[in-house]
Amino acid sequence: LHTETEIIERIWSRLPTHSVAKRAPWLQLGVGDDAAIVSGGPQGHRSRALDWVLSTDAFLEGVHFLPEVQPPESIGYKALARATSDLAAMGAAPRYFMLTLALPANRSGKWLDGILRGMARAARKFGMVLIGGDTSQYPSVVMSLTVAGQVAQGRGLLRSGARPGDGIFVSGRLGAAQVGLELMLRKLNRQRRCKSLLKPQFFPEIQPALGQWLSKKGVASAAIDISDGLSTDLTHVCKASGVGARIWASNIPRMNVPKGLQRIGLDSLDLALHGGEDYQLLFTSPKSAACKLPRAFRGVILTEIGEIIRGRGVELVDAGRTRPLLPRGWDSFQPNRKH
Amino acid sequence: LHTETEIIERIWSRLPTHSVAKRAPWLQLGVGDDAAIVSGGPQGHRSRALDWVLSTDAFLEGVHFLPEVQPPESIGYKALARATSDLAAMGAAPRYFMLTLALPANRSGKWLDGILRGMARAARKFGMVLIGGDTSQYPSVVMSLTVAGQVAQGRGLLRSGARPGDGIFVSGRLGAAQVGLELMLRKLNRQRRCKSLLKPQFFPEIQPALGQWLSKKGVASAAIDISDGLSTDLTHVCKASGVGARIWASNIPRMNVPKGLQRIGLDSLDLALHGGEDYQLLFTSPKSAACKLPRAFRGVILTEIGEIIRGRGVELVDAGRTRPLLPRGWDSFQPNRKH
Repeated sequence: LHTETEIIERIWSRLPTHSVAKRAPWLQLGVGDDAAIVSGGPQGHRSRALDWVLSTDAFLEGVHFLPEVQPPESIGYKALARATSDLAAMGAAPRYFMLTLALPANRSGKWLDGILRGMARAARKFGMVLIGGDTSQYPSVVMSLTVAGQVAQGRGLLRSGARPGDGIFVSGRLGAAQVGLELMLRKLNRQRRCKSLLKPQFFPEIQPALGQWLSKKGVASAAIDISDGLSTDLTHVCKASGVGARIWASNIPRMNVPKGLQRIGLDSLDLALHGGEDYQLLFTSPKSAACKLPRAFRGVILTEIGEIIRGRGVELVDAGRTRPLLPRGWDSFQPNRKH
Repeated sequence: LHTETEIIERIWSRLPTHSVAKRAPWLQLGVGDDAAIVSGGPQGHRSRALDWVLSTDAFLEGVHFLPEVQPPESIGYKALARATSDLAAMGAAPRYFMLTLALPANRSGKWLDGILRGMARAARKFGMVLIGGDTSQYPSVVMSLTVAGQVAQGRGLLRSGARPGDGIFVSGRLGAAQVGLELMLRKLNRQRRCKSLLKPQFFPEIQPALGQWLSKKGVASAAIDISDGLSTDLTHVCKASGVGARIWASNIPRMNVPKGLQRIGLDSLDLALHGGEDYQLLFTSPKSAACKLPRAFRGVILTEIGEIIRGRGVELVDAGRTRPLLPRGWDSFQPNRKH
């Protein structure tokens, strides 16, 4: 069995990528980050040149959503939101999207309307326009979203810029989306008192405005969105930047897990470290810039959770003890590894 | 039950598209053509401004390919080729692609290597570079390819420019890819004498050089690639241009169907009219420009098969009689309608 990372690295090694792309003068950034960057933008429209930022994300029945327990509005909303979160992580302003949609004939009526309602809500919220797509009949529901955004030339936030001494920051609180997933997997989602706990899973808030602000102010040395889980996504940043990270358990902004859910084994630190789909931003900031960061951006708290160090991998300082923190977030090829 | 067209039109009506996009100054062309066009391109790189052309295409096990009978090299090659054919139809030079790939764990080894070998072959042939993607585990093999190309500003070939009096042209011969599909569906593909008949189905030739030449010379008023079948794709052009078309059966360049296959019901005209996946270009050209067209472009014959007329829909002149030609090409929502 292969891990997702192994498969991705094999794909990169077998196909032509930027490393062999002598004739790709427009390509600023290829595979390996949240999105790709190609030069371009308006000619003569404004004085400042813009780069296009491109990303694609699959959204698959049974892997990324459960149509039997999840409302179609949520599925449509989340499909576009999670793809657009990759633009937020690059500091780009969302502009356009394309939708590949495959679905069974019996889902092409009212259910599809719900999907489109949720997706339209997301598109309006993020200011995005549908510019293309492809539709097929298929036994299961399969979506793939391609998103395009814009960032000032050379100002895209990469995963690769973190340096020893930089502070590590996250927006919002972590773990709430995972609680919703755990409720669904345990079939507790129909319980009335659980309804509000499902919202972060069904309609996650993404952070495009924060991403654009970080890019504009030039205060972030690296950024990623937390889609697979803090442990996994911080590992991505460390790997791309060639550095290590130390984070402090006591500083990680987490949710208050209701007593009833603590009893069934849900732990707020574990959720915050390895839970996926919060779509908050994780970014690093040099000490000189970090002191200029506000405590909150438009109502979303910004918390310093650790620092970039020399070396490799992530370590967690918890109750005075330091231990390695392995990436235990989401990997669809290793579903049982989780928790 | 809905047709694919009905579902697509519903998607367009429910989601924000270019029609509502006041704040999309970069968008030159939105949904409804082979690809979208956004302004952009190199600043100061060359004197001429370029537009980006974007398209996305699903490639699904059981719908678009049959992994039990089709070699993985063909599946990988064709996935990228058919998406890139949409760039050819716009007159764009292929540049970049993104791959969404979902597959079962037991296909992540040697089989995936075959896929990547075929896809790399296509990428090198078309001069394309992988710039992003997304990989998941899934019970069936699902791919979605997003492709980006470039065309001189304002020179993209649209579906909507055909005018009454224009000649209708196709490149190459039509129907050969469908023969390969019919052989697979009839389980005749293992027969040795059928091997060469499978090639147009397994490794279709697309026409990016012809598309770029048509754009550069300014001789085409409209263009589309023949992916679903001549009857369906010509109908798309008529609809987008608000015109009708008359084609002459005797002029349609078709293949010589071997006697043995004629006996099992394969008819060369039927294959040429409704067979899909040839990925030849269909284009229209004003009479003044049409006379400048060569008989062949780089060894691919160019044939005038009819003319654009006032009205709507397509009519076929066959043995002196004129009859309406309905779109009977590929529609994954109406698989039984075909032939």
